[in-house]
Amino acid sequence: MSGLAIGLDVGGTKISGGVITATGEIVAVLPPVVSPAGDTDATVSALLTAVAALREAHPGVTAVGVGAAGMVDWPEGRIRWAPNNAYRDLPLRALLEKETGLTAVVDNDGNTAGWAEHALNPRSGHLLFVTVGTGVGGGLVLDGRLHRGATGIAGEIGHLPVDPHGTAVCGCGLIGCLESLASGTALGRLGREAALEAPDGLLAALAGPGGVTGRTVADAAAAGDATAIGLYGVIGAWLGIGLAGLVTVLDVDRVVIGGGVADAGEPLLGPVRASFEERVFARAHRTPPVIEPASLGNDAGWIGAALLALE
Amino acid sequence: MSGLAIGLDVGGTKISGGVITATGEIVAVLPPVVSPAGDTDATVSALLTAVAALREAHPGVTAVGVGAAGMVDWPEGRIRWAPNNAYRDLPLRALLEKETGLTAVVDNDGNTAGWAEHALNPRSGHLLFVTVGTGVGGGLVLDGRLHRGATGIAGEIGHLPVDPHGTAVCGCGLIGCLESLASGTALGRLGREAALEAPDGLLAALAGPGGVTGRTVADAAAAGDATAIGLYGVIGAWLGIGLAGLVTVLDVDRVVIGGGVADAGEPLLGPVRASFEERVFARAHRTPPVIEPASLGNDAGWIGAALLALE
Repeated sequence: MSGLAIGLDVGGTKISGGVITATGEIVAVLPPVVSPAGDTDATVSALLTAVAALREAHPGVTAVGVGAAGMVDWPEGRIRWAPNNAYRDLPLRALLEKETGLTAVVDNDGNTAGWAEHALNPRSGHLLFVTVGTGVGGGLVLDGRLHRGATGIAGEIGHLPVDPHGTAVCGCGLIGCLESLASGTALGRLGREAALEAPDGLLAALAGPGGVTGRTVADAAAAGDATAIGLYGVIGAWLGIGLAGLVTVLDVDRVVIGGGVADAGEPLLGPVRASFEERVFARAHRTPPVIEPASLGNDAGWIGAALLALE
Repeated sequence: MSGLAIGLDVGGTKISGGVITATGEIVAVLPPVVSPAGDTDATVSALLTAVAALREAHPGVTAVGVGAAGMVDWPEGRIRWAPNNAYRDLPLRALLEKETGLTAVVDNDGNTAGWAEHALNPRSGHLLFVTVGTGVGGGLVLDGRLHRGATGIAGEIGHLPVDPHGTAVCGCGLIGCLESLASGTALGRLGREAALEAPDGLLAALAGPGGVTGRTVADAAAAGDATAIGLYGVIGAWLGIGLAGLVTVLDVDRVVIGGGVADAGEPLLGPVRASFEERVFARAHRTPPVIEPASLGNDAGWIGAALLALE
């Protein structure tokens, strides 16, 4: 299909989006808005407002794609459930088509971001995309195709049990999911514990009215605080264990890590790589995959959604 | 390809095999022989002897397929490494073609068994095959095709880390692999511990000169011994955790469990299903896959290898 497509990415904390051409060229980027994650009607309303604004500026838009956190039926585009958002059984694709008259697709945000990283930079046939933000999401491109599984909900790598008899409770209700140990939420929890232990430290000093969050840890690490950098080491080690398991099972040749927490760069990626090397099966007998930061940054989710909408 | 094919399955403890037609009809079954797992030359020699015997009885054989425990490059058929067998960098496919003049394929035994369960009974598009024997192996059929990954070694589900900070050391050298907690080897270790704790119990009474093994536990459980049945519950709970993670990531609609340890039936499968239900992501919002015993029993590995040889 020719024409322009709108892409939107609905995460746990913000909605981002923009307009692309069929070849993935970015035509417009929406200023990110806070995601009303706790209110389904407000979320839908925010999406429709964004679509209207982007169409007005770009009349050539023919399709809209949404990447949404949570379990999304494909190709129905019905959002079944998400641990970090309020929407439940939301027929978002049908709603968007009815309200906008555009061709619409709705897929999991990890899938859309993984698809963008593959489609715009197809350097391998088997890509594991990992997004580390409020939660941990993923997208699997196997043999050059998105693997959505039997009902569309494959790729929920944040809920791989890596410490099932531990103490970390996940937003999904289970114990020891990768997300409970290696997300921005986990980083914030570790930051609060560290600030309590060191009330004179930088983490405590940087804490806002809401206390220490993942953002606080990011700021402290960027300022060179050793405690904060150490906390990236803790979540990075868990992430490496999760990736080791996934690579052992899937034998991908490329791992791409995106999401807001991954903006930290080497303080996260270094420990991820070290832990991965230590934990992957038969390290001495395999060529490990490349582990690299997302080339599209935090735009991958909406870009991939728009690319899927144009297919 | 028409004609008959020989299939052979080289496990950690035995070699099994037989002859099938192109439609999977069994023409002959080889009496299982002990696998000289610690001796590469003896293993190759045992395979060639089996091929010669089966060809003499069935002159219509045109191809031979081998399923082998360990990491196998596909389509090269070179066995890179296996934690429970001695062979290292063994170009088995080339050796078989040279020595027999037959068309040959060599693949991981989990792959071949999974392929047989899918190809002869294709009830789903996404199948996770699990084999529980000396180790834990697997085969992934995704979208109706074997997923071998970038270098042919996908599906090593036995080495998914499920207790990475625990105490169980795996044959591969890592800590807390699924195999270290849910294999026949793990069952034997639990059985030895239980026999030490209860020297008057049935496990101690049934122990042979080599002490309690997985086989001893199987015999005691078959005789109704509650301790032995409880040990199946322990490894079944771990297996359920592993399957929960794999289904969360892959969204398969069918899980098939084979291998010698699974011959126990419900004492293993009951705890597997219970643990899976408890641990899979978003159980309330998904249709879980069927979890069922292998329909081909312990013949799946060699049958699948023969089917692949005929393709």
